[in-house]
Amino acid sequence: MARPTPLSGFPELLPAERVVEQHVLDTMRRTFELHGFAGIETRAVEPLDQLLRKGETSKEIYVLRRLQEEDAEPAAGGQREAERGLGLHFDLTVPFARFVLENAGHLQFPFRRYQIQKVWRGERPQDGRFREFVQADVDVVGAGELPAHYEAELPLVMADAFAALADVGVPPVRILVNNRRVMEGFARGIGLDDVDAVLRSVDKLAKVGPEAVAALLADEAGASPAQAAAMLELAALRGEDAGVVDRVHELAARHGAANELLDQGLAELGALLEVAARRAPGRVVADLAIARGLDYYTGAVYESVLVGHEDLGSICSGGRYDALASDGTTTYPGVGLSIGVSRLVSRLLSAGLVRATRGVPSAVVVAVTSEETRAESEAVAAALRARGIPVEVAPSAAKFGKQIRYADRRGVPFVWFPASSAGDDGAIGHQVKDIRSGEQVPADAATWEPPAQDRFPRVVPGTPAQ
Amino acid sequence: MARPTPLSGFPELLPAERVVEQHVLDTMRRTFELHGFAGIETRAVEPLDQLLRKGETSKEIYVLRRLQEEDAEPAAGGQREAERGLGLHFDLTVPFARFVLENAGHLQFPFRRYQIQKVWRGERPQDGRFREFVQADVDVVGAGELPAHYEAELPLVMADAFAALADVGVPPVRILVNNRRVMEGFARGIGLDDVDAVLRSVDKLAKVGPEAVAALLADEAGASPAQAAAMLELAALRGEDAGVVDRVHELAARHGAANELLDQGLAELGALLEVAARRAPGRVVADLAIARGLDYYTGAVYESVLVGHEDLGSICSGGRYDALASDGTTTYPGVGLSIGVSRLVSRLLSAGLVRATRGVPSAVVVAVTSEETRAESEAVAAALRARGIPVEVAPSAAKFGKQIRYADRRGVPFVWFPASSAGDDGAIGHQVKDIRSGEQVPADAATWEPPAQDRFPRVVPGTPAQ
Repeated sequence: MARPTPLSGFPELLPAERVVEQHVLDTMRRTFELHGFAGIETRAVEPLDQLLRKGETSKEIYVLRRLQEEDAEPAAGGQREAERGLGLHFDLTVPFARFVLENAGHLQFPFRRYQIQKVWRGERPQDGRFREFVQADVDVVGAGELPAHYEAELPLVMADAFAALADVGVPPVRILVNNRRVMEGFARGIGLDDVDAVLRSVDKLAKVGPEAVAALLADEAGASPAQAAAMLELAALRGEDAGVVDRVHELAARHGAANELLDQGLAELGALLEVAARRAPGRVVADLAIARGLDYYTGAVYESVLVGHEDLGSICSGGRYDALASDGTTTYPGVGLSIGVSRLVSRLLSAGLVRATRGVPSAVVVAVTSEETRAESEAVAAALRARGIPVEVAPSAAKFGKQIRYADRRGVPFVWFPASSAGDDGAIGHQVKDIRSGEQVPADAATWEPPAQDRFPRVVPGTPAQ
Repeated sequence: MARPTPLSGFPELLPAERVVEQHVLDTMRRTFELHGFAGIETRAVEPLDQLLRKGETSKEIYVLRRLQEEDAEPAAGGQREAERGLGLHFDLTVPFARFVLENAGHLQFPFRRYQIQKVWRGERPQDGRFREFVQADVDVVGAGELPAHYEAELPLVMADAFAALADVGVPPVRILVNNRRVMEGFARGIGLDDVDAVLRSVDKLAKVGPEAVAALLADEAGASPAQAAAMLELAALRGEDAGVVDRVHELAARHGAANELLDQGLAELGALLEVAARRAPGRVVADLAIARGLDYYTGAVYESVLVGHEDLGSICSGGRYDALASDGTTTYPGVGLSIGVSRLVSRLLSAGLVRATRGVPSAVVVAVTSEETRAESEAVAAALRARGIPVEVAPSAAKFGKQIRYADRRGVPFVWFPASSAGDDGAIGHQVKDIRSGEQVPADAATWEPPAQDRFPRVVPGTPAQ
């Protein structure tokens, strides 16, 4: 077998990089659990008809087929086969909605859940955009109703998760919020009734700029130049406090666009900003350009940028939906956000923002004096492990210099010389060497402790590449 | 959308069940790291030609295709499309071998890695056999060479992982070992040269019994009745110490089958048993019937049963392979085992062996006196969280009786009444109630601690269903 080459869009990490990713995942999990979210996982596959319900993502779906099945029905025709087939999930929201319906009788509502899993999209890979990647989602789902205060709470859970990563070098996050009722109320107030077309157009603002959006508004939402200008005026507003709400009110008054829906949306947005300013000052900013193209959002919508890495695009997005799922009898409203973990971690690594102190768990390599005394080295290792110290035994009874190099190449800080090595350079009994300083001292496997910072690989700020 | 029904073979867990699975996964990870294994993950997909190299598993593979691709080439023909396509991995060994080749220049050998991921097989689902399931693998891989002592070490890592789960009610594991050289040496010694056919036949012993295996040996390996009887005599031997090695020697001598390969295999097996008896007494048993059908094993082979649940089949299997991978210049020998985590967890849950104390992380629900004072409740929650106590705030300012029932239904042990509730039943300032005992005491969010056993959901022995 020749040396294989990587598959574009399917990134893999080396052990030291995986230590960084694992730390990010562990920190998110811990944050979500401190906020009372229960962890679930759903299967990787969903019936294709469920995945296709939204239509627009159909091109990105990976369809599954058993190889045997395929051979047996070569001419069955793509479409019919696909309809009764399975596809890999492309997000965690569709599977979660299905899980809620399927298990509603076993869940307590409002149901707070987090879910950290891989998802797959057959998109063209590019920087920060993969075909296989990890998402970390939190959602709260109610049965029948869900109070608006969750729209303030959920982005703050995510802000907490990023804050908990600040000490290892993860840049601050800025969560941009808007409210669909504000967008819809304003659009209708100025006479634009095709709200979906308005939202889809404004959603492209960051990518194509205001002139192109004005053209889109004219073409797709039938906006006059004045209507398009008003929408762009709205989309230019941003701010951290109630002042931005006042400015929207003023703008709406100036265009004669005030209405009940707009007022309700602005009240919700103002309440969200007030809670955010108190609990996570500076982390949450109202940005009236945030539209989120997907038509199922009904209240707050969120996008987030990593400060200094805005080119990455949104790394944490979501919103409020009044009908996450419905079984005909009960409708389940929800609010949630999803972090693009792979996108985040790949930037942390490629920009050198974060690194691991080593790629192997071992804090100690126990040297082997001779293969006949390997049992002695194994006993030392077992004694250290029993006290929670990660340790491995050297692969062979090579010269000690070679065994030290074995540890050194892996970044393992300590080499333990068992008592059977006594006599070599005058040492007596068990000895442990810090191979960074060269210091070697007598040690007892029943009591010796490495310094706390050496026990496990740690994740620390890197030296950013500029 | 009507209430969906589960997909056979794709099990999903409710939150309290997931707490059990997560504990099993965390314990395995910690054990593997204490033994110095580095964690990696590989992508879910591999080129189909790589997955098909072994042939025999081809029917189980899920082939992937982008929906768009499929529509564009409906008549392209299954086979050619499949050959240049991707499939979901069906184990973690094939991807690991590819990872080693692809990254050999960045790895230090011997490379100790663990890998815990989902795998997919399109098999017919049955008890303990799924289409999507989690495996937890440990392997050591050398470049060019790999000392035999790893064949003793690796099963003991797995024994440690199971031992670390004993206190939550996981039954003991019994690891059954054999050595391919013993099987091959004995078979050749009695004149059976189609060793693969012999191994495949003996591998079926537990499933079909000795008479059927004798017939298979005759049909597929060309064995005479005497040769088949000798193989079955060998396969009937088992034991925990060097005694079993002596009995194989005697058996071989009786059949005039002694040879160098057999001697080497028995020496390795004896050494493994000696190490195992010292480090994990009673956990490792030589079982000369363990054949493992796969033809790439070359030394030790392992299967494992959960004591009292032998009907589940092997829950942890593996072996030594002299050529895990090869790039033409270097060959990479390895030894490893794989735990069927989903099979294990599904039995733990279905037999009621293990349970979680609750399904939500929250140790405390902070009550809300009125929506106007929700901020006060949020502040209490933030103060508790800052000290690592999982907590959530009640969904609404309902009557306190309803808020207590909210906690009770979730198994959350404590409800916190903020100072604004003072006056209700004469309480003054912040109070916390243990809703199991009804005891209510004054508390300070800056210092109050729940009992250690209540802080997080715990995993404890269940009440087995008999």
